[in-house]
Amino acid sequence: MQQIANAQVEDVAQYMQTLGQQARTASAALRRVDSGRKNAALEAIVARLDAARPALAQANQQDLQCGRDNGLSEALLDRLALTPERIDAMIAGVRQVAALADPVGQIDGLGYRPSGIQVGQMRVPLGVVGIIYESRPNVTVEAASLCLKSSNACILRGGSEAAASNAAIADCIRLGLEDAGLPAAAVQVVATTDRAAVGALITMPQFVDVIVPRGGKSLIARVANEATVPVIKHLDGICHVYIDAAADIDKAVAIADNAKTQRYSPCNTMETLLVHIDVAAQVLPRLAAIYRDKGVEMRGCSRTQEWIGDAVEASEADWTTEYLAPILAIRVIDDFDQAVDHINTHGSQHTDAIVTENLTLARRFLAEVDSSSVIVNASTRFADGFEYGLGAEIGISTNKLHARGPVGLEGLTTRKYVVFGDGHVRG
Amino acid sequence: MQQIANAQVEDVAQYMQTLGQQARTASAALRRVDSGRKNAALEAIVARLDAARPALAQANQQDLQCGRDNGLSEALLDRLALTPERIDAMIAGVRQVAALADPVGQIDGLGYRPSGIQVGQMRVPLGVVGIIYESRPNVTVEAASLCLKSSNACILRGGSEAAASNAAIADCIRLGLEDAGLPAAAVQVVATTDRAAVGALITMPQFVDVIVPRGGKSLIARVANEATVPVIKHLDGICHVYIDAAADIDKAVAIADNAKTQRYSPCNTMETLLVHIDVAAQVLPRLAAIYRDKGVEMRGCSRTQEWIGDAVEASEADWTTEYLAPILAIRVIDDFDQAVDHINTHGSQHTDAIVTENLTLARRFLAEVDSSSVIVNASTRFADGFEYGLGAEIGISTNKLHARGPVGLEGLTTRKYVVFGDGHVRG
Repeated sequence: MQQIANAQVEDVAQYMQTLGQQARTASAALRRVDSGRKNAALEAIVARLDAARPALAQANQQDLQCGRDNGLSEALLDRLALTPERIDAMIAGVRQVAALADPVGQIDGLGYRPSGIQVGQMRVPLGVVGIIYESRPNVTVEAASLCLKSSNACILRGGSEAAASNAAIADCIRLGLEDAGLPAAAVQVVATTDRAAVGALITMPQFVDVIVPRGGKSLIARVANEATVPVIKHLDGICHVYIDAAADIDKAVAIADNAKTQRYSPCNTMETLLVHIDVAAQVLPRLAAIYRDKGVEMRGCSRTQEWIGDAVEASEADWTTEYLAPILAIRVIDDFDQAVDHINTHGSQHTDAIVTENLTLARRFLAEVDSSSVIVNASTRFADGFEYGLGAEIGISTNKLHARGPVGLEGLTTRKYVVFGDGHVRG
Repeated sequence: MQQIANAQVEDVAQYMQTLGQQARTASAALRRVDSGRKNAALEAIVARLDAARPALAQANQQDLQCGRDNGLSEALLDRLALTPERIDAMIAGVRQVAALADPVGQIDGLGYRPSGIQVGQMRVPLGVVGIIYESRPNVTVEAASLCLKSSNACILRGGSEAAASNAAIADCIRLGLEDAGLPAAAVQVVATTDRAAVGALITMPQFVDVIVPRGGKSLIARVANEATVPVIKHLDGICHVYIDAAADIDKAVAIADNAKTQRYSPCNTMETLLVHIDVAAQVLPRLAAIYRDKGVEMRGCSRTQEWIGDAVEASEADWTTEYLAPILAIRVIDDFDQAVDHINTHGSQHTDAIVTENLTLARRFLAEVDSSSVIVNASTRFADGFEYGLGAEIGISTNKLHARGPVGLEGLTTRKYVVFGDGHVRG
């Protein structure tokens, strides 16, 4: 495999074409690799990472120094840091992926047709996956593990701030793949920080089957706009909790508290609380006391202000803002239909919950709210790959097609039809 | 619903926005419609079509006259014609769709997680489907039925040659929907033949969730290039039959005959025959006699010409051409790996078959050939929705993501996560 240090990459377009060709070739080879060998490669990568702790620390120090020199914020420097504990977590993550069931080759629905042929659908890798991410270097290992386990070749492009750390991790992965006799090009880390590499990666449909951008909204929007390769997007999470007239009030308070305050920055955190007018008097004062205590700014409609005197008046923009911060929009609504309409109009089709003891309305909420996760009587914070049992996730898709919601190994595969006959011809 | 005759559409962009908004509203209403009412609407459409036979014939005569005046070929005029038998077939098609199982609302994998929440995946409509097709007016009814049964609103844009026929069919569909109490905007047929309507339809992601183009390669390529909405594409079918050294010769001859000659124009017809050198002497003369008899032009590699003296010499371009005609490329190859490599390099990932009695090679072919249908010991001609048991198909997808191969009701749906709790919060 061609390994080029940053300084040597002169023709970025040509370099990316080479990575693409190598990935395509590796992808074909991966179709012949069984589960045992994939797991052996993951274990070999673990061993290489464990043995390279001093080298990883040194490379990470270089990135951190560079970051400080360039005036990165403390928050970004923290995301960048590879502490011994984070290396432990990285290694544990690879082992978790190795322990997952292999989706590749599973055949569903195999059955006979009147013509005598036997038809089913087999789960197969997508081929080559391109992943574009920001500063956290542990994503390099996470993404590589998930792609390898699902028999996809991958091309990883990390943030320039983590270039040295990612290169050191890439060395471990390459050596681990070689230890296990797999093609090193199964996982390629882009060795140039030139931004043109991203432009090339997302416009090579002949070599790349899907792009997964992980990072801020502007990165994802840029990739989605410019890509000629399909993109599994992870855009806004404007998540709602709707407390219905038939809600159990204690459950409602616990869920609306947890959905907002357990963590403020994740995409599955509640941004707007909808409360049915019939229970507003019971729910809003109790919740307001909790939010006040935790320093959550409340922005409410005029009726909200009747029960929460210190709520700021919400503007139209509040219904469509992903705060990712201790701020909450609150609206008192008149009936179930208005709640569903609010969510489908202002939400981002990410994750929305209802709190109700009414079975009919719970069933209607599941059918009528058009979001990737719809939840009855539980916190929106559950919407992620680990909580759903996927083991690990490459992202949470806001696409409707292919994969919707948390994307694990299955989302990195597709299904083809397999047909068995015994000389059958069509009449 | 806004119905506008062709002449009245002055602002095409605004008109398409209106259709889009109406479709989005209808899509929300369809999420509240159960299977029984959808089937009742399909039956009502059948009744309206049956009652409108004279009007359909008259509208079709208008299109045919216009087509003759514009010098359409006999083949195109034939595709355009709505004979009584074709109306019977159209009606039978709607009834077949009504008889299919409803995929919407099916929940898979519902199970408890260690946190106590219960998680599953529910099949739901995509939302709004845009379908762009060429002259055959029966597609209007087919597409409408499949979208309605899968609870999708649809916007249909047919070929301008069939404008009057499509408008007459659209009337029947609208009346049938109204008879059953469903929103008429669930199925909207674009009433202008202005080409700008297509450009608008494929660039309204706020109103349209997926585009299905059905027609020639140039239409599909244009739509795929210009669309900002996801596209379920149906591109080339460069299909192969590989006759392995371990093939049963009689099966091989029957399959290679059927795959090429049963019909020449479908996308699942074989375009290239690959024959292992060890069986070339047994297979090629027998097949050549059949093809010669049926008027199939043979274009072979130099080794093919040793056994088929009258084969034309194949050029590189022959390996990547979809003839859709009585022409066949033939290549003698040395081993299994070379066959797989030829298919993955020159094919179009549509449908490829192996003829072999060797179990190991059959299993390898299924795993290693990266096509939407991989077939063992049967004709490539089986690759379609009816033969696979989907009931009806909206197309054969050459996409890798979402739906691959024949696309029926399931391909017009997606899955969202559903979560049940009892006041559960995340710790």
